[in-house]
Formats: sequence, C-alpha cells, structure tokens
Amino acid sequence: MKILVLNGPNLNLLGEREPGIYGSDTLSSICQTISQEAQELGAECIFFQSNHEGALIDKLHELRHDVDGILLNAGAYTHYSYALRDAIAGVRLPCVELHLSNVHAREEFRHQSVLAPVCIGVVCGFGADSYSLALTGLVRHIAKKQAK
Amino acid sequence: MKILVLNGPNLNLLGEREPGIYGSDTLSSICQTISQEAQELGAECIFFQSNHEGALIDKLHELRHDVDGILLNAGAYTHYSYALRDAIAGVRLPCVELHLSNVHAREEFRHQSVLAPVCIGVVCGFGADSYSLALTGLVRHIAKKQAK
Amino acid sequence: MKILVLNGPNLNLLGEREPGIYGSDTLSSICQTISQEAQELGAECIFFQSNHEGALIDKLHELRHDVDGILLNAGAYTHYSYALRDAIAGVRLPCVELHLSNVHAREEFRHQSVLAPVCIGVVCGFGADSYSLALTGLVRHIAKKQAK
Amino acid sequence: MKILVLNGPNLNLLGEREPGIYGSDTLSSICQTISQEAQELGAECIFFQSNHEGALIDKLHELRHDVDGILLNAGAYTHYSYALRDAIAGVRLPCVELHLSNVHAREEFRHQSVLAPVCIGVVCGFGADSYSLALTGLVRHIAKKQAK
Amino acid sequence: MKILVLNGPNLNLLGEREPGIYGSDTLSSICQTISQEAQELGAECIFFQSNHEGALIDKLHELRHDVDGILLNAGAYTHYSYALRDAIAGVRLPCVELHLSNVHAREEFRHQSVLAPVCIGVVCGFGADSYSLALTGLVRHIAKKQAK
Amino acid sequence: MKILVLNGPNLNLLGEREPGIYGSDTLSSICQTISQEAQELGAECIFFQSNHEGALIDKLHELRHDVDGILLNAGAYTHYSYALRDAIAGVRLPCVELHLSNVHAREEFRHQSVLAPVCIGVVCGFGADSYSLALTGLVRHIAKKQAK
Amino acid sequence: MKILVLNGPNLNLLGEREPGIYGSDTLSSICQTISQEAQELGAECIFFQSNHEGALIDKLHELRHDVDGILLNAGAYTHYSYALRDAIAGVRLPCVELHLSNVHAREEFRHQSVLAPVCIGVVCGFGADSYSLALTGLVRHIAKKQAK
Amino acid sequence: MKILVLNGPNLNLLGEREPGIYGSDTLSSICQTISQEAQELGAECIFFQSNHEGALIDKLHELRHDVDGILLNAGAYTHYSYALRDAIAGVRLPCVELHLSNVHAREEFRHQSVLAPVCIGVVCGFGADSYSLALTGLVRHIAKKQAK
Amino acid sequence: MKILVLNGPNLNLLGEREPGIYGSDTLSSICQTISQEAQELGAECIFFQSNHEGALIDKLHELRHDVDGILLNAGAYTHYSYALRDAIAGVRLPCVELHLSNVHAREEFRHQSVLAPVCIGVVCGFGADSYSLALTGLVRHIAKKQAK
Amino acid sequence: MKILVLNGPNLNLLGEREPGIYGSDTLSSICQTISQEAQELGAECIFFQSNHEGALIDKLHELRHDVDGILLNAGAYTHYSYALRDAIAGVRLPCVELHLSNVHAREEFRHQSVLAPVCIGVVCGFGADSYSLALTGLVRHIAKKQAK
Amino acid sequence: MKILVLNGPNLNLLGEREPGIYGSDTLSSICQTISQEAQELGAECIFFQSNHEGALIDKLHELRHDVDGILLNAGAYTHYSYALRDAIAGVRLPCVELHLSNVHAREEFRHQSVLAPVCIGVVCGFGADSYSLALTGLVRHIAKKQAK
Amino acid sequence: MKILVLNGPNLNLLGEREPGIYGSDTLSSICQTISQEAQELGAECIFFQSNHEGALIDKLHELRHDVDGILLNAGAYTHYSYALRDAIAGVRLPCVELHLSNVHAREEFRHQSVLAPVCIGVVCGFGADSYSLALTGLVRHIAKKQAK
Repeated sequence: MKILVLNGPNLNLLGEREPGIYGSDTLSSICQTISQEAQELGAECIFFQSNHEGALIDKLHELRHDVDGILLNAGAYTHYSYALRDAIAGVRLPCVELHLSNVHAREEFRHQSVLAPVCIGVVCGFGADSYSLALTGLVRHIAKKQAK
Repeated sequence: MKILVLNGPNLNLLGEREPGIYGSDTLSSICQTISQEAQELGAECIFFQSNHEGALIDKLHELRHDVDGILLNAGAYTHYSYALRDAIAGVRLPCVELHLSNVHAREEFRHQSVLAPVCIGVVCGFGADSYSLALTGLVRHIAKKQAK
Repeated sequence: MKILVLNGPNLNLLGEREPGIYGSDTLSSICQTISQEAQELGAECIFFQSNHEGALIDKLHELRHDVDGILLNAGAYTHYSYALRDAIAGVRLPCVELHLSNVHAREEFRHQSVLAPVCIGVVCGFGADSYSLALTGLVRHIAKKQAK
Repeated sequence: MKILVLNGPNLNLLGEREPGIYGSDTLSSICQTISQEAQELGAECIFFQSNHEGALIDKLHELRHDVDGILLNAGAYTHYSYALRDAIAGVRLPCVELHLSNVHAREEFRHQSVLAPVCIGVVCGFGADSYSLALTGLVRHIAKKQAK
Repeated sequence: MKILVLNGPNLNLLGEREPGIYGSDTLSSICQTISQEAQELGAECIFFQSNHEGALIDKLHELRHDVDGILLNAGAYTHYSYALRDAIAGVRLPCVELHLSNVHAREEFRHQSVLAPVCIGVVCGFGADSYSLALTGLVRHIAKKQAK
Repeated sequence: MKILVLNGPNLNLLGEREPGIYGSDTLSSICQTISQEAQELGAECIFFQSNHEGALIDKLHELRHDVDGILLNAGAYTHYSYALRDAIAGVRLPCVELHLSNVHAREEFRHQSVLAPVCIGVVCGFGADSYSLALTGLVRHIAKKQAK
Repeated sequence: MKILVLNGPNLNLLGEREPGIYGSDTLSSICQTISQEAQELGAECIFFQSNHEGALIDKLHELRHDVDGILLNAGAYTHYSYALRDAIAGVRLPCVELHLSNVHAREEFRHQSVLAPVCIGVVCGFGADSYSLALTGLVRHIAKKQAK
Repeated sequence: MKILVLNGPNLNLLGEREPGIYGSDTLSSICQTISQEAQELGAECIFFQSNHEGALIDKLHELRHDVDGILLNAGAYTHYSYALRDAIAGVRLPCVELHLSNVHAREEFRHQSVLAPVCIGVVCGFGADSYSLALTGLVRHIAKKQAK
Repeated sequence: MKILVLNGPNLNLLGEREPGIYGSDTLSSICQTISQEAQELGAECIFFQSNHEGALIDKLHELRHDVDGILLNAGAYTHYSYALRDAIAGVRLPCVELHLSNVHAREEFRHQSVLAPVCIGVVCGFGADSYSLALTGLVRHIAKKQAK
Repeated sequence: MKILVLNGPNLNLLGEREPGIYGSDTLSSICQTISQEAQELGAECIFFQSNHEGALIDKLHELRHDVDGILLNAGAYTHYSYALRDAIAGVRLPCVELHLSNVHAREEFRHQSVLAPVCIGVVCGFGADSYSLALTGLVRHIAKKQAK
Repeated sequence: MKILVLNGPNLNLLGEREPGIYGSDTLSSICQTISQEAQELGAECIFFQSNHEGALIDKLHELRHDVDGILLNAGAYTHYSYALRDAIAGVRLPCVELHLSNVHAREEFRHQSVLAPVCIGVVCGFGADSYSLALTGLVRHIAKKQAK
Repeated sequence: MKILVLNGPNLNLLGEREPGIYGSDTLSSICQTISQEAQELGAECIFFQSNHEGALIDKLHELRHDVDGILLNAGAYTHYSYALRDAIAGVRLPCVELHLSNVHAREEFRHQSVLAPVCIGVVCGFGADSYSLALTGLVRHIAKKQAK
C-alpha cells in the first residue's frame, strides 16, 4: 500500500513558523515519524511539499496510478483552491484532509474548507499527531475497500 | 486516565439508522471496541448517550472532576447547541469532537460546528474508526499535558 | 394503521396561550377530535406531548416499530431542532409537519422549517383543523404505500 | 358556497410533466375529483388555469364578488409574483396556497413563498390529495366565518 | 408579590466556571442575596435552575398562575431557544432577561437574543449585581402595573 | 406634448382595494383629474392599465414614437420586472415612477425598485396627488429638454 | 400655513458642486422660487440649511409648534441619520423627503433612505423642481388634513 | 430536425434598442440568417417572439411534441422567470440559453440565470452570432442524441 | 464619586415625544429623580444633553478627569456612532448604556448597539427606571473598583 | 490570424477524469479537432495547458503580441483567479471563456466567473463542441474587428 | 502650495488615548512635525481638528478656494460619514485619507472606508509617520498636476 | 538594512498595461528610482517579480533571514492569497502592502485585502510614488524597532 503525503504552502517552515500555533516539530521530523508508522501499518509513504498550487496538482496527477491514497495538509489552499479540489476529485483516490492546528478556533476564513467535500474525512488540532491519526484512518479505509 | 465518551441525539439508533451514511455498527459494539483500545492505551472509558441536550450537559458537569478528557459525538447538537459549548468551555477539560460521516460532504447546515472552537481537535468521516482515532489523539494530548 | 401524534413545546397550553393566534381549543379536545376522525379513517392515534426536545426524540425512537406514520406539531423546535430532523429521517416513517397558525404570516424566524425537508408534506394555518387535514393526508399516503 | 380553483403555470401539463415529482394524474382528472368532493361538502368549484400571471390576476378580479374563497396552486409564481400577492390581498377573499410536491424538499428557491403571508393557510406534499385537503380546510374556514 | 428566578444551562457551575468572565460568586450565594433584596422590596423569590430547555419551559408553565413576574438568566439558550421564547410569550407574565457578563463585548453569537423581544427589559454586564438590578426593575414594573 | 400614463397590476381595483392604503379614488376618476391637469399644462394623456407584464411592455413599444414621456405606476411589477425595466430603457423616453402609498413605510420587498434606475425620477406617498405631481415634473422635464 | 424647508449637508454648495448631477441653480435661487410658489399656494416658507446633523435636529425641535409641515432634503444624512429619523417621528409633523438627483440611479448606498419610513412621501430626480413638486404635495396633504 | 427559436421581451425592438449593447441587426434579419444556417445543418426553425412570459410558456407547451430542441433568448426573463424554467424542465427538450451581449460584463442582476440550470448550455456575448453558435451547438447535441 | 449623565438626540423632547414608547416623564424630572438617588448612593450627577454627536464627544473629553463614570442614553447614536464609541474607549471610564424602551422589541436597526462593546453593561426597557437601575449598577461597579 | 488556446488546471486529465461530466475525449484529440477547424476558418491555433495559475499568466504575457485572440478554458481558476483576470484585461486581446460542462447546473461555486466580465463572451455545456463554437465565435469577432 | 490638514473625532486626545494603538505623540507635536516637513516640501499647512462631523464639512467648504489639497484623518467618521464623502467630492480638491493605526488589523467595522473612493489615495499603519508619508504623496500629486 | 521588494502578477507589464489606471512607468524604471531612494535612506533593495503565487512565497522563505523588511505589491493576489498571507505571518518580518492605483475607487473585489491584517501598514493610490512612500514608511519603522 502506497500513500502520497502532500504538504502545501508554508509547511516547509514548520518548527520555525509561529510555533505557538504549529508546534516545534520540523516537517522532516514529522515525515520520519509518519514513515515509520506507515511501515508498521504495512504501508509506504511518498512525500512532497510545495508552495505552488500547480505543483501540488501536478504531483497528484503524476502519481495517481502509483499510490492508493492521499494524506493532504493543503495549508491555506484548503480555503480557496478549487483547482486542487478538482484534482482530488479527478484522480479518484481516497484523500484525508488534515491540519496541525484546530482551524475552527482560529480566523473566520479558516473555518471553511473547499477540499473537505471531496475527501473521505478530516483530522485537525492534534499537532504532529494529526498526521499519524490521519494516516491510520486512511490506511484502514483503503484496507477495508481492498478487502471488499 | 479516564475518558468520558459522550454520544448525542440519535446515536442510540446506530447500525439501524441510515446505514448508508452511518455504517452498520451499533453503538454498543463501537463502545466495546473503544473500551478495549482505551485499555491498550492505558485509559478507561465511561460511556453516556442521551437525546437530551440537558442530560449531556448534566453528565459533563457531574463527571468533570472524575475524568481527564472528553470524546464527543454530539450528533446534530454539534450545529446549534451553544449550551453544550458553554458546558465544554466551563468544565475545562480537553475535548475532541468526532463524527462518523464526513459532515462536509453533506447538507450545508452540517458544515458549521459551534462546538469545535472550544475543542482541541476534530475527527470526521472514518465511520466507527473516527472514535478510535479521536481516542488515540485525545489520550496522546492528555499524556503530553501530564508529562509537562 | 397506527399514527403517533407528537406535540412539541408549549402546545400543552393550547386554549389558554395567545388564543388570538392559536385558537381556544385545548390540546386534549383536539386529541379527542383527531382520535375520532382517525377511527373513521380506520386508524388509531397515540398521543404524546413534551416541552423537551430529547423526550420527543426518545418517543419517536421508542415507537418507531409500532406506528405507521407521524403527525408532528413541533412548535418552535420546527425552526432549529436539527436533532429532531435527524430522528425523523432516522426512523424512516412518513411524517407530516403541521401548525395551527399560518407561520408564514408571522415573525421571520417562523418562515423556515428545518424539519420540512425530511417530511412528506406540510399543513398550516387552519387552526385545530390543521390536525384533521394532516391526519387525512397522512392516512391516505400510508394507505397508498401499503397498496403498492 | 363557491370556490375558485386557480392553477398557475405548467399545471396544464400535469400527468405528463416530471411525473416522478408531480404524479401521473392529469389536471382535468384532479378537477373532476375536487368537483365531486366539493359537492359533498356543499360547495361548487370554478376552475381556471393559465400560464399568464396577468390572466390569473384578471380572473381573481373578475370573480371576486362571485366566489367565497380561493384554492391556489400558483406553480412557480408562488416564489416571485408580488403582483399575484397584491391581487389576493386586494380581493379580500380567504385563499389557501397548495402544492402537489413538498416544495421544502426541493431547490432552495422553492422554499420561499411570497403569497403565503396573505393566504390563510398552506398545504403541500400530498400529490393530488393536496387539492382535496386544501379544499376541505378552506370550506371549513368559510363555514366558520359565515357561522359568526 | 412572587418572582420566579429562572437560571439556565451551566449557571449551576457559577463561581467555578470561567471566573474571569462570570465572577467568583456561586449561584446559591447569589440566590441568597437576591432573596434578601426581594424581601426588602416586599417580594418573594422562587428559584429554579436547569440545564434542560424543556425543564425551564415546564417550570414556567407550572408556576404561571403562582408568580407575578420572571427573572431570567437563560444562559446560552438566550441565543437560540425559540421554544423558551414562546413559553415566555405564552404565560403572559412580565419577564426580565439578564446576564452576568456584558454579552455585547464577547463572541458574535452572544450579541443576538431571541428572548429579548418578548421580555419587558434587559440587564447585562454587572456580574452578580445584574440579578439585583433586574429584580428591582421587575418589582417596580409589577408594582406600577398593579397600581393601575 | 403627449404623455402615456401606464398603470400596472391591481390598479384597476383602486377605490375598492385596501382603501386605507390606496385611498378611495377610483382609477378612472384619477385619470379624469390627470387628463384635465395635463390639458392645463399643454399636454395630452393616453391611458392604459393592465395586469399583464407583457401587455404593459407591448403598449410601451407600440406608442414609443407617439408620446413624449411616460407616467408609470407599475404596481408590484416595480419590485421585480426587469423586463419592464428593459422596455423603459429600450424606448428611450423620459419616464417617472410613481406610487400612491409611501412604499418605504410598508413591507421590506416594496423598498426596492428595479425600475427607478432607468427612470428620471420618482414620486410616492401622496395618494392620487402622486399622479399630479409626477405629471407636472415630467412635463417640465420634457419642456426643458425640448427648449434645449 | 407654515412650512419649514430643511436642507442638509453640502446643499449650501449647490450650483457649484458637481453641477452635472445637481444642476446649476444655487440654493438661494431655489429658496426664492419655492418661497414664491408657496405664497401662491397660501403658505409661507422658513428656510434652514446646516451641515450639522445636530443643528438640523435642533431646528426641527425649535420650530415644531410653529410650522405645519417639513420639506426635507437631508443630503447624505438621508442614508444613515437615525437621529434625524427619530426627530421627524418625534415632532409629529408631516414631512416630505426630496432629492435633486435620482438617487436610485447613483451609488448603491444612496438607494436606502432611513428617513422615508417616517415621512409621508418622497420626490426625487427633478432637479430644482423636486422642491416645487414636494412643496405642492405637502401643502395639499396639510390642507386635506386640516379640512377633516 | 425542428428547432423552436424563442425570443423574449424587448427583442422585437432589436436594431433600434440600445444598439451600442445589442447591435444594429433587427430580429427579422437575425431570423433569416439563422433560418438559412439551420437549413445548411439539415434543420428547420420555427420562430416566436413575445413580451409575455405566459405566451412564451404557452408556445413551449404547444410545440413540445413538434420540435427537437429550443433556442432561447429569454431577455430579462432569464433572471427571474421560474415559471419559464419549470416549462423548459417540463417539456423535456434540449434547450440552449443565449444572449446577444456578454451579460457578465453588465449590471449585477444580469449575472444570474434561473434558466441555465435546466438548459444544456449557454452562449453569450457574440451579438447576432450568438444565435448561430447556439444553433450549431444545439443541432450537434440533438444529432448525437439521435445517433445513440 | 461623580457621574456624568449623558443624554443624546431627541431626549430633550421626553414626555412629549411618542409617550406610548418613551413614557410621559420629562428629561428634567428624570434628572431630578436620578440626582436624588445618586445622593443617597453617595454620588453626584452632572447632566448634559445634546442633539450633536460632536457635542457629546466634546463633553466626554472635557470632563474625563473630573468624573468617575458615565451614564449614557445615546438615543439613535447608539446604532451608528463609531465616533462616540471611540470617545468612550478613549476616556477610559466605566460607562453604562441605557434605554427607556426595550430596543429589542422595536425596529431591526435598534437591535444593534455599536457602543455596548466598550461599555461595562447595558440596561433597557424600564422607562425612567432604566436610569435609576443603570446608576445603581454603575455606582456599585465604581465602588468595587475603588475598593480594590 | 493566430489564436492562443489556453487550458487550465486538470484539463490534461480529460477523457479520464469524471467522464460522466467532462466526456471521454482527451485534450489532445480536442486540440487536433480544433486545429483543423481553425485551419478551415483561416486561423492557426497555439496550444498551452498548465495546472499553474502563474504559468497561464506567463504564457498570456509571452504571446500577447503574437496572437489575435484567446480561447480560454480556465478550469477551476475561472471562479477565483483575479490574477488571471487582470492578465486578460492587461493584454488587451479578445478572449472567449468556455467550459465543457454546463457549470450552471453544477455546484454553487461554479456559477460565478471572475473572468467573464473581461471576456467578450462565454460558451458552456457543449462538451468538446464548446471549443469549436467558441473558436468560431472568436474568429468571427476578430474578423469583424479587423474589417473595421 | 497650501494643504488643509483635517483631523476628526477623538484625535485631540492623541498621546493620551489608547497609546498602545495610537502611539504617544500628541496631535500638536504631530502638527509641528508636519508643518516643518511641509515647509521643506515648499508647502504650508493649515490645521483643523473637530469632533463635529458638520464642523469638518464647514471647514472643507470654507477653505475650498484657499487650499490645494487635503490631508484627512477622519477618525471613526471614515467608516460612515457619507456627508463628509459628499463634501470631499463637492470641493473637488485632491484628498489623502490617512490613519495612524493599521485599520485592517483591527475591528471589522474599521475595514471599510466610505471616504476612500473619493480620495486619491490612502496611507495607514505608520503611526505619526502616516501624516508625513501622506503629506509627501499629496504634495507630489499636486505638483505633478500643476506641472501639466 | 535590506529590503525585499516583492511584485506580484502582471506587474511585469507595467507601463504597457492599462496605463490610464497604472501609469506609464515601467517596473524597471520604478525599481531604479526606489533603489536610489533606498540608498539615500541607508537601505538596499532586492527586487523580485513573479506571476506565480508559489514563487512569491518561495522567495519570501528564501530571503527571510537576509532582509529586514518587505515591500509588497501583490497585485490581484492581495484579494485572495491566504497562502501569501500565511507566508508573511510566518517569516515574521515587517511588511508594507502597496498599490499603484486607489483600489478603493475600483471594482468591489479590490476593496478587500486578505494580506493587510498581517502587514504593518498600507499605501495606495499614488502611482509609482506609492513605492517610494511605502519604502520610507518601512525604513523608518525598521529603524525605530532597531533603535529600541
């Protein structure tokens, strides 16, 4: 089982950027943890981060036949990238939206996700653990689907 | 570590009610699973379900000194019960909001949660696994807090 | 054929409460009339009134296998009880929403019903006769369904 | 007692138009049924259908001294014809708004009626029976008024 | 002169719950103070607190012939309980809405009261003194009405 | 100078329809008065009333080369007839919108005019005198334009 | 019969300010014309212009027992001065709102008048003639009222 | 293949009405062009223009069994005629909405079409060519459907 | 302890202006009562009324070092004077907003206060007693603050 | 005559992505068809597709002096890319917006185009034929402009 | 070159009022600085501050022929004074709107300026330097205009 | 002191693109001027322009430790790029938003900036001088901060 872990704009600054909100783990340390957890769940992760909306879409397209699901922290694109939404719907792969912070406790504009309606589920607010929980949820979802 | 698992209106009908949306597990089978998973995480669950907004608040008040966190599937109260919101804020315990279905892919009114802003995080869309993921996230959160 | 006649908040005060709007019939006199009309239509009514949102939901759940349809005057819960809406959708029984007064000629907030989308029809504005008309409509609906 | 039964745009296509929503009865078969039911209730029906907003208003004006009440299925005019609304208010006759389908379970624009605030009541969702129920309600309303 | 002092959800936690917002007085100490002030004003208070919307309505109904006015801190129900609003309008007793905190300086949703339009007045922002001021205002109002 | 006096839906009922709002003058008596006043101002009036939106537009088109200006009481069409608006703009004649009642002191929907932006001015609230004032204003406007 | 002609902010610049919109007549020349027309109608005008909201209110209060009606061009205060609205309602004198330009053909914010609901009528779009028409309408209104 | 070309309000004035927006072709010259183009595409056009919403609906009904598709320039009815929308949905014929001007570059109210959701496509902004393009699109659509 | 009692637009007409809403007490009789009540509470009142927004602000500024708190009935300025709001926030004195009538039971625009968020509390609906209650609340507030 | 055919995000997946909505033609087969049709119309097409908003803008800039018009299927960028809108306005070339599907019959967010106001026209709903129709419309537009 | 520096409500309290937001410079010290900077730029400043909307308008009118431009910190009037907006448009002088604080990072109501659309530019967020930057911008603007 | 001057989409076309709005200076000539002015202020500018949202974010990240502040003309991204907003907040550098034109006097969508709340200030409307003023403001801001 292969999982594409897609990280959007500004997540490359994790650990340094507003640590009061996003925690002090860096993206690479999170990726390492997730990679190991995936292994334990019998899955393999492919990581990609970009600040470019188009690059995130390109990667989704490129790997659409190579992966079984998507773990997506789209950062601020969550709130307005209908292009990314169309890409998720277009590749027909199960996708989980996740956020480090509890977006519902922050600015009004972060309360709306244009991606969530085409995802299978959402996890937010657990810091780096959001990745871990989302991964578990996604892997179980794929396993059940494959079992059918 | 003790966790109050609070289930709101219509969740007693799980397994029977709109299985296409909510799955075919009954609430009691979910509770059993969660109970076991909690044990493995070194935690104990106390379960309560009610269709009464007031009863959910009463229970939160009653157990506020006896539990370390709350797992909350508030059903439709999620979308308008400011009284429940005040109760969560009032007992000052970490609370995770969860949903079986992906509420963002359903009717407009289910896209807004009045509870999420006073919770630590949200999990939705993984069916019965939403409980399991939310439990794990909550237990880790409490453990980290206690470790400080 | 059995019909659950569910009355919501403040309807126990009928006859006494704002008679200019709601008429001077008491709830029990209306129930008596309905009971008799039901008998003539070959149906039997079970009556329940409560000011508690949760109690209305409990009753819907409790009798869901014992009745063939629901006559529902949800009072003010009509306008915000998504929990009641979920209960109606969950028990999968034909339900008719009714009001004594013409809600569309009153305050703005009474123009919206969160229940109507999961009911089969709505009757309002005929005073006590609203019950009678709604009953007839519901009984005919059930009869047609059973005839199929 | 004389009742004007006014049918608005597209109702002439009943039976043929979207039968999944509007049923398979034709308008003339409904009129026949209503006519008979009216007779049993001691009333007489005058029928008029038009796709022209102005013609519906003209008819209301023309018969305003000859009838005791109005049964009105205004079709889509329900949602925007303030001219029809003024006509109903202007002729000072009791009017019942009715719909074959449950408009509240359909498109957003059908949830608002600009006519309902000047009617005595509304019936919707019972298919052809909506006419029958609305007629009964109207006749009883007129009878009570005349009895005073 | 008898006054029903009705307290809504979460007010039983007063003194313990978010004291920075609600002060450190407990509900029972406030009740004692009010009771005494009422005596000085020639009135007697009956106290009731519940987290159940329905129980608040039940109590209003139950005592509607036994009291001369209502002092109401409906907590969060202030912002959405149209059922409570209907109960206040239905019992036809003068009612004063009160809040410990200045609701207008808090979250957006607390700026709207669905109860205020059927009350005679509103007092908010004075901590425990809000009860005292509201009581005085209500007693004077009743006295004037009785003097007519 | 020729003026087309166009009256919209329900204005044929003037004198009889809601006299508390619209006064007790009939449309024909108003027309007579206006006719005479026009004569004094050196103008001639052509009168047309219809409840049909299309007929009002047809008449505007038909007489567009025969008249110098339009006096328009469009009744309820004022608030939604974009077709009439396009007709006024299309015939390129000065048009004055008028109302018997003060529409701004009535229902919300009467506060908006979709016609006013393509008229030269508006007069409302003076009963039958609204016609007279609007006529005077229109005639002076045309005279000034012709004088240039 | 005495009429207070009240002119609001920036009307002192008439003739000079945006003549394309407001015409080239100065306020004093308009006042002269109106004064003469009033005389012919058997009325006398008192003129007051101010850029101060408070001064307009003061003048309304000061002359409330000395005049029979008000001609009001409130300029931009039309769109937000609820204080002026309360003053008009408070002095209980018939008031006509007028504008030189057709406010409905200009910026969005000019389409709403907070004063119109407490006036008897509105005249706009006729340039300096708006004053003349409004005066005639007001004088006729007062004459009718006095004739009763 | 037969196509009903339906033209709504004010389109009879084409060539004369606001030529800056709508061009200088008359409706009859456009019809001639379209007729010829249709012939080349193996189709025949039936033309109907009316300023009456009801007449447009009547014609749609009348010819619903005689034509294979509809070319519709509904003029201003595009923006509010839900009755016309219901007629299009009711006759179950492929319909193309078209406009001479680019409605999206004009007033706000022209940006919304209530008809488009029940049409197969929309063409706007090409002047008289909009008819030609829409015709081609419709004919190809019908041909493909018939080929299946 | 010194209290500035600030009265806004139209309050000088009290007793005469719409007595059904505002009561028949004049402002000077209310001031006398308040003055006496203040004395009993160990405080002294300074009174100022103006119809000028700027004059109210000037007075707030002028006396900001001479008084301990503000009693403010801002009349209609309550609903839009952000300048007054800034003045209250700028002088850093405890301020109580009050109204004679229950503003929440009147026009929509009176439901919003732009001042309340920078006041310590609000009292409305008790007629002249609103002043008395607000005074008591303010004096107690200041006393508690000084006691700290 | 040279035409730039610009395709936005996810259009590279055509034929594979949601064929129920977008049809089974691939982008390259559409380009071939268009290329040929262009040739017949005496024009030449330059094709560019990108998932990057910035790349679409870059291409518009790069070719702005080399092409005579633009055929634009901006995919989801249609609904929010004001940057693309500014680019279209900035290069001052005639641009036609097109969509394969009828966007007005899909999700709410697809009903608004931020690009259309700076385009000359819009074509949508004809599947691959949308390109063909839009091309024809654009070529005719350019030819007419050049003919002037 | 003469510049009118107009300061609105509460700016006389600068230095003392909420220094965390507005800084600790007094208005007179700012004026002195600006005066000197103006001199260096070959301009002269005339200063006026008032809490009265009307007084600000009066001053604009009074000096309209004596100055070449306006520097305007309208304080809270920025957000609702359409009268001030009309004055700026009426005197036809270049005007720069400025604010000490970054209004976009504060309360929602401060995000909208009703004045900005009739100004040439806006400067905000630089504390006392906002005056300096705005002055420079205005002087350069006037110089360029005069150079033409 | 080093300043990053970031220019967003379409600004590379300056001088050529809609010169009536944006002026005839090219971006490179503006950069030259700014460079020189920066030197005089003891600062050095680094310039970057891109039409790619992601590239602007990348550059902000790349230079975040090398510069002391940001001068940002984000073009149309100003109105919707929450990703850019997060980048500005994330790099914790003082940023000034600037625009050549007065965005408040243009289309509605340009009135809202999603970036301004995380900037220190905004300058707009002075053409190329906007850069100069913004630079001065930013340099002074940094100097003050460094002086502390």
